[in-house]
Amino acid sequence: MALATSPLAPKRFPDLPSVEGVRLGVAASGVRYSGRTDLLVAELAPGTSVAGVFTKSTAIAAPAKWCRSHIKKGKARAFIDNSGNANAFTGKAGEASVKRTVEAAAALLGCKTSEVFVASTGIIGVPLPDHLITAALPALMTQGMTATWEDAARAIMTTDTYPKGSASRAQIAGVPVKIVGIAKGSGMIAPNMGTMHVFIFTDAKIPAPVLQALVKSAADKSFNCITVDSDTSTSDTVLVAATGRVKHKAVKAASDSHLKAFRTQLDGVMLDLAHQVVKDGEGASKFIEIRVNGAANAGSAKRMGLAVANSPLVKTAIAGADANWGRIIAAVGKSEEPCDMDRIVVSIGGVPITAKGMIRPDYDEAPVAQHMKGQNIVIEIDAGLRKNGKPAPGRATVWTCDLTHAYIDINIGYRS
Amino acid sequence: MALATSPLAPKRFPDLPSVEGVRLGVAASGVRYSGRTDLLVAELAPGTSVAGVFTKSTAIAAPAKWCRSHIKKGKARAFIDNSGNANAFTGKAGEASVKRTVEAAAALLGCKTSEVFVASTGIIGVPLPDHLITAALPALMTQGMTATWEDAARAIMTTDTYPKGSASRAQIAGVPVKIVGIAKGSGMIAPNMGTMHVFIFTDAKIPAPVLQALVKSAADKSFNCITVDSDTSTSDTVLVAATGRVKHKAVKAASDSHLKAFRTQLDGVMLDLAHQVVKDGEGASKFIEIRVNGAANAGSAKRMGLAVANSPLVKTAIAGADANWGRIIAAVGKSEEPCDMDRIVVSIGGVPITAKGMIRPDYDEAPVAQHMKGQNIVIEIDAGLRKNGKPAPGRATVWTCDLTHAYIDINIGYRS
Repeated sequence: MALATSPLAPKRFPDLPSVEGVRLGVAASGVRYSGRTDLLVAELAPGTSVAGVFTKSTAIAAPAKWCRSHIKKGKARAFIDNSGNANAFTGKAGEASVKRTVEAAAALLGCKTSEVFVASTGIIGVPLPDHLITAALPALMTQGMTATWEDAARAIMTTDTYPKGSASRAQIAGVPVKIVGIAKGSGMIAPNMGTMHVFIFTDAKIPAPVLQALVKSAADKSFNCITVDSDTSTSDTVLVAATGRVKHKAVKAASDSHLKAFRTQLDGVMLDLAHQVVKDGEGASKFIEIRVNGAANAGSAKRMGLAVANSPLVKTAIAGADANWGRIIAAVGKSEEPCDMDRIVVSIGGVPITAKGMIRPDYDEAPVAQHMKGQNIVIEIDAGLRKNGKPAPGRATVWTCDLTHAYIDINIGYRS
Repeated sequence: MALATSPLAPKRFPDLPSVEGVRLGVAASGVRYSGRTDLLVAELAPGTSVAGVFTKSTAIAAPAKWCRSHIKKGKARAFIDNSGNANAFTGKAGEASVKRTVEAAAALLGCKTSEVFVASTGIIGVPLPDHLITAALPALMTQGMTATWEDAARAIMTTDTYPKGSASRAQIAGVPVKIVGIAKGSGMIAPNMGTMHVFIFTDAKIPAPVLQALVKSAADKSFNCITVDSDTSTSDTVLVAATGRVKHKAVKAASDSHLKAFRTQLDGVMLDLAHQVVKDGEGASKFIEIRVNGAANAGSAKRMGLAVANSPLVKTAIAGADANWGRIIAAVGKSEEPCDMDRIVVSIGGVPITAKGMIRPDYDEAPVAQHMKGQNIVIEIDAGLRKNGKPAPGRATVWTCDLTHAYIDINIGYRS
């Protein structure tokens, strides 16, 4: 099925700088698609440290399971990603496919297999024809490592309608470093095609445990705050490599003050990629930001926000440009998170709608209706809790897209 | 918006017997609709005991809040239900509306206000024009209590496409008693119209605490095991009245062996009504039963089943008659409930599809594809856990419907 590019897509793929210590290669291995690339190898210089976060699904796919079990060793020489087949729910055969793939790559690089990280996305429950991948690797890795970031972002696409990339720069103790990332993902899951894979690269020198702390923190504020359809993939993978090719003052802890700018920019790149994933949500026509404050704590605020973001009734109302604040209140209510319904304030597009447990007497729907016609919808929820006479501190922001006929079209007959 | 009758609707409203001690009246009070009834009064004989379960939403509507605060007193003389306005998120004004309504009915019946239970469904956030209801009550309650069960079931409808009723009979210590119920509900919630209201009546004599235990148990196996769109209403209400007009041996505990048949039949009526609600789910074209066994315990089995039932990807696949078992596995995985992915068996239409962590080598999709074309889809999930060498005992069954373009149509422009 050829999908039209999301109306929320950026105008073009961004200009991304090269990152010293990273070489990219893509190939058309023929796993499933014809006439396009489906294999990405990101080769990483010796000494590269790595961190990552992975799906919490109990049905975790073989490649994600491999990564999860080796990430703590903290060293990487290659990321290998294929699209077209997720190698998920493939039993022992799936694990054998991973093993053959990492062995082939490790032999070509002269490294340990535990330094090769793999990610697969596509159809589930079908054995991965890994011989196509291992057959493509020698030529690719010896003479084909000349791909651009956009080539790389395109090779990993499945139901994505556009390639996703982002970059930023920071200084560590006065020395400039780069951060560049690519991602794929359109539904949070479409297990017969689609999941979220994110690969980020920096030339900074960050020890693996420090990098892991930064990545975990950034993911909790970005990829763990987005939802398209409430479904979680068997294969979600975020991998971050630090090649250490730029010489700067050594950093030893995530709290190191020299890392402040780097941390901010890493957060920014991950958030940008997360937003791009939502904006390519299956059938998305509107990008929705939900800001919660006045909640008991950050976790409660996030759960409340996600209850609204995952409500089919809220999402269909927004698809219809309907300023249906009642469905937002009902979604907050169903979350069962602490709130004060007599003080709750729901605002849309900056216009407060409720007060004292009901609609404001002076509420004028006209500006809200206008806001709802736009592509970027902002919902604010003040849960109304008080602590020591002040608004309670719990706050969180989550992002989602609307639920449209196109989502049904894409998913109703996807496998066929 | 006029909705076509659900393709899953029963051929006709069932024949329901009268229940001694219950009189019904309906009226067109004009709260919102024109040309149809919107007000139901069920008058209950003196001595009637009552039990109920209500929404857990923190945004609980004023009528449900009233019922919840008086249910423990255990006595009822009337149930009053209006459609068209949910009296939800209406603040102090909403509570005043409830007070005026129950006072008017209590004056007409010469009873306490705490013996009058109310339920409202329809638009949210708009003050209930209760003067229309209190104006209609005197004539209705003095000379209009002549409605049939079908009249009653129709008066409480909102986006429902057919009236819902069910009945059964049982014996208590050799004496025959009746159980009759009506319900409304199409989306689990559509806060601008729609929620689930259930009213059940029996002529048995059951003390309120005993009745409460039976109702709680039955609801956990029926109304709490269904989902249309994962959204929970601000107004969900189940009320059960026992008029005690049939003389039988006194029962003093829910565990009384004389109540065994009654309990079974009450469970059956509630399950039948729950199934009718799902079959009128907004846009439903298929009725889906999900049976989970081999889970750690019943609660875990239910959460696993509901994760599958609420997965938009599973629901759209079924809408498209696609035997997409991979999405079922992924939904089980995202529930994060304990299971053994190397032993899990997913079956559709009685045909086992998986074994040993992958698709069965001999899997033949033809009979499954045939099953998927039908209106009644059965999914079985053996979570594969073992305990003391035997399959683990956790089991549960949940019910849902598919997710179709019609759901989007109904909800995308509902309020306008």
